[in-house]
Amino acid sequence: MSDDHTTPADWCLHPRLKADSFPIFDHGRLQFRLINDRRFVWTLIVPMHPGAEQLHRLPPDWRNEALAGLQALSETLEYLYHPDRLNTGAIGNLVDQLHLHCVVRFGDDPAWPGVVWGAGEREPMKPIELLARIQPIAAGLGDALARNSERTA
Amino acid sequence: MSDDHTTPADWCLHPRLKADSFPIFDHGRLQFRLINDRRFVWTLIVPMHPGAEQLHRLPPDWRNEALAGLQALSETLEYLYHPDRLNTGAIGNLVDQLHLHCVVRFGDDPAWPGVVWGAGEREPMKPIELLARIQPIAAGLGDALARNSERTA
Repeated sequence: MSDDHTTPADWCLHPRLKADSFPIFDHGRLQFRLINDRRFVWTLIVPMHPGAEQLHRLPPDWRNEALAGLQALSETLEYLYHPDRLNTGAIGNLVDQLHLHCVVRFGDDPAWPGVVWGAGEREPMKPIELLARIQPIAAGLGDALARNSERTA
Repeated sequence: MSDDHTTPADWCLHPRLKADSFPIFDHGRLQFRLINDRRFVWTLIVPMHPGAEQLHRLPPDWRNEALAGLQALSETLEYLYHPDRLNTGAIGNLVDQLHLHCVVRFGDDPAWPGVVWGAGEREPMKPIELLARIQPIAAGLGDALARNSERTA
């Protein structure tokens, strides 16, 4: 239950996030998405809270759910990709709807050691590439969310 | 108590973080710092956990403490500055020691709408300016940490 009785039913995804990314899956009140950019494995978590703009202003139960989602997503990306670094953040200077970034980074990727935000032009993937990238993340994330929820139950 | 009996006594600050920023204060197992750059109110939280590099690999009690610190810091910066946006993140591509960023952003600041990481040259402050910036953050943060800890007690 939400502190403020807000529900995902009243929520819709920002058009720019919709255009730039594809759904991985929804879990609870979170939508996990993949940015359509071949250069980086770049994921998003969007809490489906209408009007949410900043993490620190989310109701505490929503914030805890988002942070648990970030933990599961981070564990999944580490397991799948063995990155040199995960870059996580809530920026939102261009899209005011709250979304958390979690990006797989390598010392030889095209933006290293800089950040991915504002780094060059995105390279859209073909549908088959998108699917191949999304499928293992979805499978791993489902496992991680279930495992972590058992651990805290 | 730490999950792994690690204590801040075994910890020391990364030389680059030490050179780039000044202490606001230590609270529990967290060190709050201010980046020495006149252009942005740019704060850091450094969990004093020896060897910590990534947020998702911190022991859960340390991670919860760091995230509670980020919440108190965000509330403080919002109260003091009324920013258009707070940018928060864990990047660490240049400094492997775990540190969380929390940056006050305005639509007319020198990096907007881009991010502050990698944006131009830092402008160091004079000691009196640093002090004037640190003092209200320290006071507000002390209040926010006490208030939030009562709320969850």
